[in-house]
Amino acid sequence: MRSVLSGIAYRVARALGLTSSATATRNGAMIQAATTVAETTPCNARPSDWLGRRLNLLLPSINARHYFGGIHTAVQLYRALEKHFPATRIVLVDSAPDAAALERFGDHTLVDCAADSTANHQIVPFNDRYGRTLPVGAEDCWLTTAWWTTYSAQRLAAWQQQQFGVAGRLINLIQDFEPGFYPWSSQSALALGTYRPDQDVAVFNTGLLADYFELQGLAYQRRFVFEPTLNDGLRQALADVRANPQPRQRRMVVYARPSTPRNAFELLCEALREWGWSDPASARWEVVAAGELTADLDLGPFTLRALGKLDLPAYAQLLATSAIGVSLMISPHPSYPPLEMAAFGMGVVTNRFANKDLAEFSPNIHSADQFSPEVIAAAIAREVAAWEGRQMQHTSLMATDHAFLAERSFDEIAGQVAVLQ
Amino acid sequence: MRSVLSGIAYRVARALGLTSSATATRNGAMIQAATTVAETTPCNARPSDWLGRRLNLLLPSINARHYFGGIHTAVQLYRALEKHFPATRIVLVDSAPDAAALERFGDHTLVDCAADSTANHQIVPFNDRYGRTLPVGAEDCWLTTAWWTTYSAQRLAAWQQQQFGVAGRLINLIQDFEPGFYPWSSQSALALGTYRPDQDVAVFNTGLLADYFELQGLAYQRRFVFEPTLNDGLRQALADVRANPQPRQRRMVVYARPSTPRNAFELLCEALREWGWSDPASARWEVVAAGELTADLDLGPFTLRALGKLDLPAYAQLLATSAIGVSLMISPHPSYPPLEMAAFGMGVVTNRFANKDLAEFSPNIHSADQFSPEVIAAAIAREVAAWEGRQMQHTSLMATDHAFLAERSFDEIAGQVAVLQ
Repeated sequence: MRSVLSGIAYRVARALGLTSSATATRNGAMIQAATTVAETTPCNARPSDWLGRRLNLLLPSINARHYFGGIHTAVQLYRALEKHFPATRIVLVDSAPDAAALERFGDHTLVDCAADSTANHQIVPFNDRYGRTLPVGAEDCWLTTAWWTTYSAQRLAAWQQQQFGVAGRLINLIQDFEPGFYPWSSQSALALGTYRPDQDVAVFNTGLLADYFELQGLAYQRRFVFEPTLNDGLRQALADVRANPQPRQRRMVVYARPSTPRNAFELLCEALREWGWSDPASARWEVVAAGELTADLDLGPFTLRALGKLDLPAYAQLLATSAIGVSLMISPHPSYPPLEMAAFGMGVVTNRFANKDLAEFSPNIHSADQFSPEVIAAAIAREVAAWEGRQMQHTSLMATDHAFLAERSFDEIAGQVAVLQ
Repeated sequence: MRSVLSGIAYRVARALGLTSSATATRNGAMIQAATTVAETTPCNARPSDWLGRRLNLLLPSINARHYFGGIHTAVQLYRALEKHFPATRIVLVDSAPDAAALERFGDHTLVDCAADSTANHQIVPFNDRYGRTLPVGAEDCWLTTAWWTTYSAQRLAAWQQQQFGVAGRLINLIQDFEPGFYPWSSQSALALGTYRPDQDVAVFNTGLLADYFELQGLAYQRRFVFEPTLNDGLRQALADVRANPQPRQRRMVVYARPSTPRNAFELLCEALREWGWSDPASARWEVVAAGELTADLDLGPFTLRALGKLDLPAYAQLLATSAIGVSLMISPHPSYPPLEMAAFGMGVVTNRFANKDLAEFSPNIHSADQFSPEVIAAAIAREVAAWEGRQMQHTSLMATDHAFLAERSFDEIAGQVAVLQ
């Protein structure tokens, strides 16, 4: 009894932010340290009257400012799975949905977690969950993607075991190796701990990532893999380039995303400076930054021109008229920009990582085999010389039968995954 | 010529801090981002008149407030190598030595990098290196340990290649997998880039770490390994415990180092709370924190008592009288506390990581096979029950012939490494 009551007291204290921070010293300096991992704030359940199978997509948020590739892909898989389940819910653990987000899910009903709704398609905000519980039935099953949504769903599934005698089933849509998003730490350890290759079903965003997991000893018994495909919004522009190829401008496009450490913005800048100082040809080239830069950047030998976040038509135009792309990604995940640049016939400089070598994806891609400004700069200089040597004519557009140019559908994977739930 | 002059201009600008930061937006918010990696500020060289082999130890600092285990171990290896070289230098790249530090190296001469000294044992501050160069001869070779000292030495070695026709040789004392100290990023990539298994000699601090490197595809052709041994300052206390074993107090010692992410302080606190709420026996136990905590910490079900940084006699007394130790390390490196606790007969709860399972090191160690507060809490509860079940008698002290209790000497490794230089 003590443990139950105390546990409640703790959850109350935690939700109120009363859990203490630690006072410590390092090198004589005082520091205040967290004693909890915010991402793991408990999601508690109560028995639901709901009977039958129900798919629950746990997401941090569906609001536009959080709605990036990873969340969009999770929603696509959820939509493909919907037809296999009599009922579905989207449970939001970080941010409540705003009006615009709800509009995008017009076929869903907004439900407060206090209600035990029988609506067939629900959106349940569960970000503000102090003293609140989510109604969970015996056959609720879970689709997750960010590691902390997986963490919560795994504990809800364990609660189902206690309550109903059978643990809930879980589909983990794995879109990167998330422990790599942190230094080795509590967070990286907890993220790593959410990989349960003997228990959960894994759906991997790319075979490269799936293979990396196996290399790390994380061999999922039940795994599915899908590969990246070209954004539909770029297809017409690619067809146009194919129909009417033109020499490219002496323009280099770099993917500059300083807010995402694995895009290695500092290393990109160091490599560009090194290239600028060491390659006299650099004076003849324009270098532009797609991504997040909003002000031009003086890199010493040249100015990196900021294009900010481009809409799809502007991005397509850039891909169709530029010669060279530079895009780094410190992860086994390929990321889209180098693939898109290669599809449009650009010469691409990127990096290898573990089992990833995008040169296997396209002959237009050069993967630097060492992480140093000098090696990346030398790869850029070779691309520059090659383009100038052939009077700015591109070598090859991506073959029309390349897997990257196929239409994506989650229907097949969804059908296979659904029978396991 | 352009590139040389521009390069100088860049180095001047960089040293003056004039290299620009980038302006970007994410989710509509403005951010300022670095465009350089501070750790890689160039170390430039000029030809030295020095002839003959000279060992150069590159270190961030030798001042007391930076003088932790890793730097001490590097100095021990340097001292063992000294006798194989006619001359040696210690080059400090982050902090100039203070008077107390210089006193500890009384056989060394403090030398300004502007001088081309012939002193046989030099200390050269090179932290403030704007517009300055280090005199380097053809047979200067390099001993490094933190990744950015390796990064600098590799570029000095490449300069030797250009200047003298032969690249400098490098011994990399590898004491952890340093890319793991960062999220996947420019820093992690550059740290990873300093591992050159085909070129450099590696001296690994523990076989576990060496094996982890091989698992990551980093198989050094020339590698040496040494294993951890008990600190000499703890040996008498262990002998005393062996001579006069006593029942242990109901005391748990946790290794609390919030300033070091890989010690997973938040996860430790979460696990302790979970144990406190779920195990009624917790009310009978005292839980104390060795490491950095300076104020007691309310963990909910109990208070974690702060012991701060202990001197060796106090630490030895704690090891000799306590029953259970909890020490996490999110790294393949074993770290000392769990080994020391096990040597003294304590029951130890720690974590596995990749190829690391310290249960192979001592039967007193339990390595949790999953990163979750629940799993670690359950391991603690089992230890508590086991100690109470045997009336607080310890099971076994470490056997006197255990490798951890051998005397450490770097003489053998130094002899083998020196002939490769």
